[in-house]
Amino acid sequence: MNNKVIITIGREYGSGGHEVGKRLAAKLGIPLYDDELIQEAASKTGYNLDYVKANDEKAPELSIGSYFSGIDIYQSTPYDNIQFEQHKLIRDIASKGSCVIIGHAADYVLRDEEHVSVFVFAPIEDRIKRKLALLSPEEAEGMTEAAMEKKIKQMDKQRRRFYDFYTDNKWGAKESYDLCINTSRTGIDGAVSIIETMIKASAGKDLFTDM
Amino acid sequence: MNNKVIITIGREYGSGGHEVGKRLAAKLGIPLYDDELIQEAASKTGYNLDYVKANDEKAPELSIGSYFSGIDIYQSTPYDNIQFEQHKLIRDIASKGSCVIIGHAADYVLRDEEHVSVFVFAPIEDRIKRKLALLSPEEAEGMTEAAMEKKIKQMDKQRRRFYDFYTDNKWGAKESYDLCINTSRTGIDGAVSIIETMIKASAGKDLFTDM
Repeated sequence: MNNKVIITIGREYGSGGHEVGKRLAAKLGIPLYDDELIQEAASKTGYNLDYVKANDEKAPELSIGSYFSGIDIYQSTPYDNIQFEQHKLIRDIASKGSCVIIGHAADYVLRDEEHVSVFVFAPIEDRIKRKLALLSPEEAEGMTEAAMEKKIKQMDKQRRRFYDFYTDNKWGAKESYDLCINTSRTGIDGAVSIIETMIKASAGKDLFTDM
Repeated sequence: MNNKVIITIGREYGSGGHEVGKRLAAKLGIPLYDDELIQEAASKTGYNLDYVKANDEKAPELSIGSYFSGIDIYQSTPYDNIQFEQHKLIRDIASKGSCVIIGHAADYVLRDEEHVSVFVFAPIEDRIKRKLALLSPEEAEGMTEAAMEKKIKQMDKQRRRFYDFYTDNKWGAKESYDLCINTSRTGIDGAVSIIETMIKASAGKDLFTDM
């Protein structure tokens, strides 16, 4: 690819957002930054990797104002320190060249930088089926649809709390993104093709050039 | 095109959704059903055209339950009769062959029929600029940004009330659609290309064939 392109992917748990990002990055020949890489990178700034993993994409339990709203009474937490390091890291990653970044409110962190912002979702019934189908035989032992539904809802809730706490936007609301894709309707490869088309479309596009 | 394809386009006022539908239909060589055509067709079922136009995509002022919820105390209104005729009409149109249908909750009316459901949106600042730029010199006379903003919000409110009243989904919420597109980021032609990619992706796609 000739021009630098940054793609951020927000995702509902079990919607295949990570797989979309992985295949997109491979197809475009650019690096993918997912949970694992971002956690590792953040741990290099001084935090213990296990500690970073345990607190990744989480918001403090008690939400007094937004991290970005600058309310004076807000007291910094360990979550904030990890997020602060990760935000620096995401800006650093994006400044270096083309990449795909999964989660971590990267769309908001990079709001002043040109990028394509995507949110991937799917009906919960399909996400339950998808996550159950992806379990190893050991993981599947004793797992039920109800238990998987509970886990998916917990993960979505955690991601929503994290995003809504550390940004001024709303997680999963279309207004926060350039494009929202239902993977139950497009499939994983379909979503990748749609994002590729979006990248071409958004390159230097002005609303008023083609009214 | 070999296979029948139905595309429904919901849209925020001023986002260019109609233009997206028009160009998409032209590119695919299939008919476009927009306000004008749907109004004319509905008027052929017995209603006066001016009356249909005045009541198109509007919900009754007093909302007691949903049209589809079958609440017994709900009393039918002239709006309902027009919507009922239009719903029959939309199902009839869709049964005949490929087409693009703009607005009129067509995505919900055709929920049991295979189709691609898109919602087109843009930040309100851009929609104000776009609508102002499209005015004729006579229309622009005395028009202000504030007046245009008010009109846009009124139109969105009307469409939301109509959709939320006559369907069980939420207007403009990503969950109600396959794809949500921010035209300020894609441009009109970009949105058309994205929908074309979506049509190819959704043809016979199953989430579990490409996990």
